[in-house]
Amino acid sequence: MEFFIASGPIGETPAGLLTLGQLMISLVIIYLASKVGGELALRLGQPAVLGELVAGLAVGVSGLRLVDPEQPVLLLLAQIGVTLLLFEIGLESDLRSLLKVGPQSLGVGLVGMLLPFGFGYAVMKAYGATDLVSIFAGAAMTATSIGISAKVLADLGYLKRLEGRIILGAAVLDDILGVIVLAVVSGIAGGNGLEPLVLLQTIGTSIGFLVGAIVLGNLGLPLFLRVVRALRTRGELLTASLVFAFALAYLAEQLGSAAIIGAFAAGLVLSETDRRHDIEARLRPVTDFFLPVFFITVGAGVNLALLGNSQSLTLALALTATAVLGKLVAGYAAFGSQANKLAIGAGMVPRGEVGLIFASVGLGSGILVGVNHTAVVTMVILTTFLGPLLLGLVLKPAAPAKTKEAETF
Amino acid sequence: MEFFIASGPIGETPAGLLTLGQLMISLVIIYLASKVGGELALRLGQPAVLGELVAGLAVGVSGLRLVDPEQPVLLLLAQIGVTLLLFEIGLESDLRSLLKVGPQSLGVGLVGMLLPFGFGYAVMKAYGATDLVSIFAGAAMTATSIGISAKVLADLGYLKRLEGRIILGAAVLDDILGVIVLAVVSGIAGGNGLEPLVLLQTIGTSIGFLVGAIVLGNLGLPLFLRVVRALRTRGELLTASLVFAFALAYLAEQLGSAAIIGAFAAGLVLSETDRRHDIEARLRPVTDFFLPVFFITVGAGVNLALLGNSQSLTLALALTATAVLGKLVAGYAAFGSQANKLAIGAGMVPRGEVGLIFASVGLGSGILVGVNHTAVVTMVILTTFLGPLLLGLVLKPAAPAKTKEAETF
Repeated sequence: MEFFIASGPIGETPAGLLTLGQLMISLVIIYLASKVGGELALRLGQPAVLGELVAGLAVGVSGLRLVDPEQPVLLLLAQIGVTLLLFEIGLESDLRSLLKVGPQSLGVGLVGMLLPFGFGYAVMKAYGATDLVSIFAGAAMTATSIGISAKVLADLGYLKRLEGRIILGAAVLDDILGVIVLAVVSGIAGGNGLEPLVLLQTIGTSIGFLVGAIVLGNLGLPLFLRVVRALRTRGELLTASLVFAFALAYLAEQLGSAAIIGAFAAGLVLSETDRRHDIEARLRPVTDFFLPVFFITVGAGVNLALLGNSQSLTLALALTATAVLGKLVAGYAAFGSQANKLAIGAGMVPRGEVGLIFASVGLGSGILVGVNHTAVVTMVILTTFLGPLLLGLVLKPAAPAKTKEAETF
Repeated sequence: MEFFIASGPIGETPAGLLTLGQLMISLVIIYLASKVGGELALRLGQPAVLGELVAGLAVGVSGLRLVDPEQPVLLLLAQIGVTLLLFEIGLESDLRSLLKVGPQSLGVGLVGMLLPFGFGYAVMKAYGATDLVSIFAGAAMTATSIGISAKVLADLGYLKRLEGRIILGAAVLDDILGVIVLAVVSGIAGGNGLEPLVLLQTIGTSIGFLVGAIVLGNLGLPLFLRVVRALRTRGELLTASLVFAFALAYLAEQLGSAAIIGAFAAGLVLSETDRRHDIEARLRPVTDFFLPVFFITVGAGVNLALLGNSQSLTLALALTATAVLGKLVAGYAAFGSQANKLAIGAGMVPRGEVGLIFASVGLGSGILVGVNHTAVVTMVILTTFLGPLLLGLVLKPAAPAKTKEAETF
């Protein structure tokens, strides 16, 4: 009997689909890696996510090659995981306390976008790249992976503290701005140039969606609660909440924003209800099912062989250093607050999946290729590992590291 | 902006993959249909599953065509749902009380396989079919959909009662025997004829796996519990349980048995632990995420247009009538028990996904085609609807129909 690796040997799944057996063994490997990595990290005083990313590296293309990071079904499950995480974070957030730190979040978000963009553009120009290539690399530098930082903050017990709220607000803003930047650079890549009308439209729908979803969602909330109360079948609260979250996420995506923004908005709206804790309790296990797929596939996608070339290595290190610097400086844009500004900057460092999206759009359009593409991808990966590491160094755990479900369930 | 239906217009997803947006809107439609159908059925005094199947019909190929029942990603999620359901049923079961009704389950399982096979063979021969076609149709008649009956029994509060345990035991046996029958007819379809050695091997591995998994699982149980106790990261109990269940399910499939048998065995083993209720509480929301996809896609696959042809209609009705009769008679093979024997037979009636697998193997091998294939598929579908309906008529709800999570969570 052939004993194959998860999802078949890498690159040998042409149809992109998995059988039930392949999916189950993939999940077994992903769960085992996720728990081994997370537990080791905790025991070394690091955020669990950092360990999960390293474990992903160990089972991915640079390691045992047990998990194919490009397997489409696994990527779909990973995306559901991030969507559910943002829904959960919205649920745990408090709109009023987010708005209270709004000015600080706005400052951090804007500086954390402009500075890395400028740094990335300058570094690439210094290495002799064209304007177009430099714009793309700069755009990839602006990203913030809200999923990774939010999980680290939750691991450390900082999600609801001042630092956590400012990072969360800035990261959501960064995602909204990121969608706009992506639309602009995609337009440039497509030869459209900069169309002010399209730009304004993208900005308008993204911000309008968030505000509209929250306002309309709050109006529809009494009806939602009345319907849920009338339901008698099993799982009625979870199913109704998922319908609400997925519908808003879908709408956000259709309107040109991002699915995670819709899911976050849905969570914020439902966080105002008295069923909030019941929804959280039921949502947690579902998130726990999907989310490890995200962290492990992100780690599994790291190809250490790409760093063998000395030119791409120095370029990658230059981009990484400025990428970290840009976000750390942005932390100090949290004017007039008592927060740990270094921690805020560190929380903005991981580029994660958002940075990878920029890199892949650049690759697909033929602009960000070869050494430049490798350097940008390496920057994304290194910042994704450095972010949790820095946060772990700068913040002392606020809650006991032992966050067993049994205690919060 | 084009407003597309779930998973794109039916038949127009060549790659078989879904985008995140397509998946989310598919799930929204599936959840809405599932809840509307389930709630209406409950209010009409019927099992929720019956309503979900009818709702699936309404959104599937015979209705609004909003859900593509052949979408591979949805089918994969549906399969995970059934695997999780069987894991949950194993968890809720008690090995000792299942073994206590072992002789009754064995009788019901064997008669419920032999009688429908004979009926199916005879009906097809009477309609002028060849031996090979008649054997295939007979084999499809032997199936029992454990997923559908178990859900109905749970809905009605009968899962742990005498009737529920006998049906569960007989259905598990039927699944084991079904895998064997499928291997045999596939061999015949492949021109192998009946190889006694292969037959013996298939029977041996299937039964050996179940016994071996339970024995070895019980031996490994203390280690499993010690590991779970040592874990500190979030979701440790659910993740460890899923690793256990998926690993056994994968192993079962690899050894030529069925994934659901492995998941059921895993549940039975873990049902012996003192964490049983904690595992159940965490597993429930995950099952609630996936399972509606199963019931809705089964209903969505019903093509009422196939019944337009009078020849296929009479053949389908003859098969359906004998399929119901065969299982109802099998219920009386529960010798020497006080159970409601009509209810036991009714619980064995739905062929569900197991019957559809037989039909599709027959179609793929070119043996069960045209009118014969349509008739067998129709029989599978009608029994799937009639089973819950009959059970609902024969059994009075033992628990209050209101089974809100909040009360059991």
